[in-house]
Amino acid sequence: MTTAVISPTAVSEQEGTMAKLTFEISMSLDGFVAGPNPSLDQPLGEGGERLHEWIYGLASWRRRHGLEGGETGPDDELVEASFANVGAIVMGRRMFSGGEGPWADDPRNEGWWGDDPPFRSPVFVLTHHAREPLEKEGGTTFTFVTAGVEAALEQARAAAGDKDVSVAGGASAGRQYLEAELLDELMIHLVPVLLGGGVRLFDGIDAARVALEQSRVIESPGVTHLDYRAVK
Amino acid sequence: MTTAVISPTAVSEQEGTMAKLTFEISMSLDGFVAGPNPSLDQPLGEGGERLHEWIYGLASWRRRHGLEGGETGPDDELVEASFANVGAIVMGRRMFSGGEGPWADDPRNEGWWGDDPPFRSPVFVLTHHAREPLEKEGGTTFTFVTAGVEAALEQARAAAGDKDVSVAGGASAGRQYLEAELLDELMIHLVPVLLGGGVRLFDGIDAARVALEQSRVIESPGVTHLDYRAVK
Repeated sequence: MTTAVISPTAVSEQEGTMAKLTFEISMSLDGFVAGPNPSLDQPLGEGGERLHEWIYGLASWRRRHGLEGGETGPDDELVEASFANVGAIVMGRRMFSGGEGPWADDPRNEGWWGDDPPFRSPVFVLTHHAREPLEKEGGTTFTFVTAGVEAALEQARAAAGDKDVSVAGGASAGRQYLEAELLDELMIHLVPVLLGGGVRLFDGIDAARVALEQSRVIESPGVTHLDYRAVK
Repeated sequence: MTTAVISPTAVSEQEGTMAKLTFEISMSLDGFVAGPNPSLDQPLGEGGERLHEWIYGLASWRRRHGLEGGETGPDDELVEASFANVGAIVMGRRMFSGGEGPWADDPRNEGWWGDDPPFRSPVFVLTHHAREPLEKEGGTTFTFVTAGVEAALEQARAAAGDKDVSVAGGASAGRQYLEAELLDELMIHLVPVLLGGGVRLFDGIDAARVALEQSRVIESPGVTHLDYRAVK
């Protein structure tokens, strides 16, 4: 048996730079992350696009989507930083497939994101249906994980190295990591619209299992970025 | 027929200082303004008190409740300013009576607020049951209005003079003024807790009738103050 001696300082330094699990999502003021009646044509539901209008014009977002130009400034820096810190992604199966339907678990389904998805990193998809990994252009590989949220996170952490792992959504995947006390940071982009219906971010969550602390608030035109630290 | 000539400057100056209708409320991150199972003993429902912890220690709040001392700083200034600007208050019947129940419309009900309520201004209560006004200590008079939200607002504006009118709650009263496009400012004190159930601020709102613009965001320890301008 060997014993490793680790000084408290070393542990503390390690914690300070430890890769995090983050979940970032745009939410309406009435708590929805997608509007009512989502479909393959409109995976964000009716009015759901309004939650993301703040991001579409940003240079960092456009670059990710193979487009030139765009706005710079605090919003752009925030989005750029969150892209830069992420080494791997976890997502729910509906986010991969573009909603619920008979197509969602069809192994021929190539996902909703086209040939050149904007993730540009390894993506681990939570699903109940095993299938082979799917390699796309631009650095995105979808790996399908059937062994649950902890297993998906473990694989994502291994792929991310010393970078963060990000839960890309949807609401259900984010909630599961929050309830399992695996999430480190929750970032809500709060948009001043009311959708009146759709998918609620916190619907059905076991509230007693979640404790949050405000860590940063950034006000921008048309959106407020709210960062919370999950207390474990 | 007489014609009044008003210069654009005069109109603009008048608008700049015109008394507003404001609605200010504390909300959990999952959208609740009261917890589940409200009762006379616990009118804010289970866990509902957590939404207001940020305010109880403030000097301005304590002074209003006849207490000395308390914290000063940005939160205190914000609360003090909102007290100072308000000349009259509108509230729903359940807010007056401390919840729903057989007592709510009993004309012998003196309300939930004791002999010396913290409002210190004329209060207009929305109700379907006519009754005589109720005068309390410290400047609070409850007047019961059966003719609807517009009539209550008209009476409150007359009482407020050049000061603002504030909707003190609950959620239903605030929603009615928002939907009727009578509200000028919505101020949400967003608290980083999840209640998991209770009364939702925007439940059942006709979202299509509401348009909001961010006007100010103030981050404080344990609460974020979000101000919105209602676009009419």
